[in-house]
Amino acid sequence: MEDNIFDFKIEGKSENARAGVLYTPHGDIKTPIFMPVGTRATVKTLDPQDLIDVNAQIILGNTYHLYLRPGHELIKKAGGLHKFMGWNKPILTDSGGFQVMSLAGLRKITPEGVRFQSHIDGSYHMFTPEKVMEIQNAIGADIIMSFDECPPYPATKKYVADSLKTTLDWAARGKAAHKNTKQQALFGIVQGGIYEDLREESAKKLMEMDFPGYSIGGLAVGEEKEDMLKITKFLNNILPKEKPRYLMGVGTPGDLLKNIENGIDMFDCVMPTRNARKGTIFTWNGKMIIKSARYTEDFLPIDENCECYTCRNFSRAYIRHLFNVNELLGMRLASIHSLHFYLDLVTKARKAILNGNYAAFKSEYAQKLDKKME
Amino acid sequence: MEDNIFDFKIEGKSENARAGVLYTPHGDIKTPIFMPVGTRATVKTLDPQDLIDVNAQIILGNTYHLYLRPGHELIKKAGGLHKFMGWNKPILTDSGGFQVMSLAGLRKITPEGVRFQSHIDGSYHMFTPEKVMEIQNAIGADIIMSFDECPPYPATKKYVADSLKTTLDWAARGKAAHKNTKQQALFGIVQGGIYEDLREESAKKLMEMDFPGYSIGGLAVGEEKEDMLKITKFLNNILPKEKPRYLMGVGTPGDLLKNIENGIDMFDCVMPTRNARKGTIFTWNGKMIIKSARYTEDFLPIDENCECYTCRNFSRAYIRHLFNVNELLGMRLASIHSLHFYLDLVTKARKAILNGNYAAFKSEYAQKLDKKME
Repeated sequence: MEDNIFDFKIEGKSENARAGVLYTPHGDIKTPIFMPVGTRATVKTLDPQDLIDVNAQIILGNTYHLYLRPGHELIKKAGGLHKFMGWNKPILTDSGGFQVMSLAGLRKITPEGVRFQSHIDGSYHMFTPEKVMEIQNAIGADIIMSFDECPPYPATKKYVADSLKTTLDWAARGKAAHKNTKQQALFGIVQGGIYEDLREESAKKLMEMDFPGYSIGGLAVGEEKEDMLKITKFLNNILPKEKPRYLMGVGTPGDLLKNIENGIDMFDCVMPTRNARKGTIFTWNGKMIIKSARYTEDFLPIDENCECYTCRNFSRAYIRHLFNVNELLGMRLASIHSLHFYLDLVTKARKAILNGNYAAFKSEYAQKLDKKME
Repeated sequence: MEDNIFDFKIEGKSENARAGVLYTPHGDIKTPIFMPVGTRATVKTLDPQDLIDVNAQIILGNTYHLYLRPGHELIKKAGGLHKFMGWNKPILTDSGGFQVMSLAGLRKITPEGVRFQSHIDGSYHMFTPEKVMEIQNAIGADIIMSFDECPPYPATKKYVADSLKTTLDWAARGKAAHKNTKQQALFGIVQGGIYEDLREESAKKLMEMDFPGYSIGGLAVGEEKEDMLKITKFLNNILPKEKPRYLMGVGTPGDLLKNIENGIDMFDCVMPTRNARKGTIFTWNGKMIIKSARYTEDFLPIDENCECYTCRNFSRAYIRHLFNVNELLGMRLASIHSLHFYLDLVTKARKAILNGNYAAFKSEYAQKLDKKME
């Protein structure tokens, strides 16, 4: 049973919030966890030592991007993605489903799979559940994803229901094609849009296939936050308690806290790094717009209580200067801080869960953290 | 006598090549030394820990750029450039002379100083020897430069001779205006183009003013390499043996080796970092064009014998991939390697000098290192 290789132990709960440990071939992951996004075999502007320094436990790679460049065959020849990029801790790859669906006008969905054109050179490619498994087996991440169709938002219930049938068929085909079950845990992806009955059908059919973990896809695609939370709350009562749950592509610090409350264990999002590169930095006091003139002569660190490399060594005035003159070090120092903050956030959430006072922790921070700093 | 605060001890010679130690308030510098260029309070793409890791002993900041952004007053408020940028080892600032002279069409030279327009916003500014000293005193580098006029190449002997008179006058005015002689050593800048008699006049008049070190400016501006070497060889017999000599803005690895042979102790150049950001990497086997298709599946490090962070952790194929997809980490990893190589080069040159076999060392490497790798 491949389901047992990636043990998941729940060490504590606070209402529905869970504190667990997920075991993988490249190390243990304490949950809830946030996974920095390393799209093209690098978390933008950072090196692997930076990631260790911000306490990253697992990072995410994008199958679609890695397939196009440098190509999964090259990564396989390099000895897998861990070795290729010099990162020896766990990695998760997505299925490419979200990316190819985003290629509006450049892709065609059939029961067989998705035919698409590369966004780089227009060349034609075909992703099937089997092909995506071949690619992810070559890349060699510890946790991999079933190929799924991610419906757009808004979409009619009919569209989402039809799409779901395809995704369930693809999940079964991908599971059958997965060649490396001892080293790579394949998660099924729950779809169904904002429709509870479709989400229930999706989850239960995947559970019949018995995956070692379940992802929740098709959220954070434009729906209201209430709808996202309604779905994760709903699925909390359906998905097996003893398996990890991964909410794909989410989100703000507040989103993390609210979904942890709904029993989510794993998150990924480009937000902390993408915003950091544009000068918006997440802190325990809200979002800091570092380019603001108010920081011109502010020689305090971004956060006086933060222990990241950036806060231990540099002032707001210096980082503002770097952004002001377009020096790349600014983007890196901001990314280091924001990722350190996200990892600190889930670490503190975990402690609150183990202390049994998660609801109070969430209430204190969920609104504040998503606002601009006063 | 401010000349004595920055002691310089020569520990060994090999013909004219010198191995010394230069003492500064922020630490000792073993010479010959190469100084990475940190134009705008950062060595592009790198952080201070990276600089320590590549064995940088001293870095250079550009007075012109720092004056414009973030401004010397801001740096002073921050506690000086060391504190502002988080670099606690020695720093040298140039005089801004070369930069304002390069603003062709945007500057006017008078006996008083140079009036120029900012390359950023066209605003008007005036650099005088006194103003440049005020700026450098505010920035607080360990070693600072007299304001000089750097003549273009080619230039008539008449032009260079007239220019030299101005530069000598400015050197005296700057020395008189220098407010912080206990913490900052002011070097005089020898000018005179490719004319030996003017160089001699320049050097001797500066020596009468008794500076703690002498810079050689106005080379690497377009003249033949033979002319550069002719001038440094000539000045070796004129400049005081017991003072450090700094050849400004030079150069390739071969240039360093050839000028060390002519008694030069200090160098700076943007070449290793600028070329690295474009994918040309310096190695002990010559220049590597990392974007070349030949490295697509090359899983060796840039240099198998190198101990830098880049070579200990990443392959040519990975770095090529990063450049191929424009990931900033590629520029940083290449910069780390190339600076580590430049620092390794001067360290090995120093050893050869102390072993008394510098000529053989130079002969082995001076040509090879400037060529493209085979």
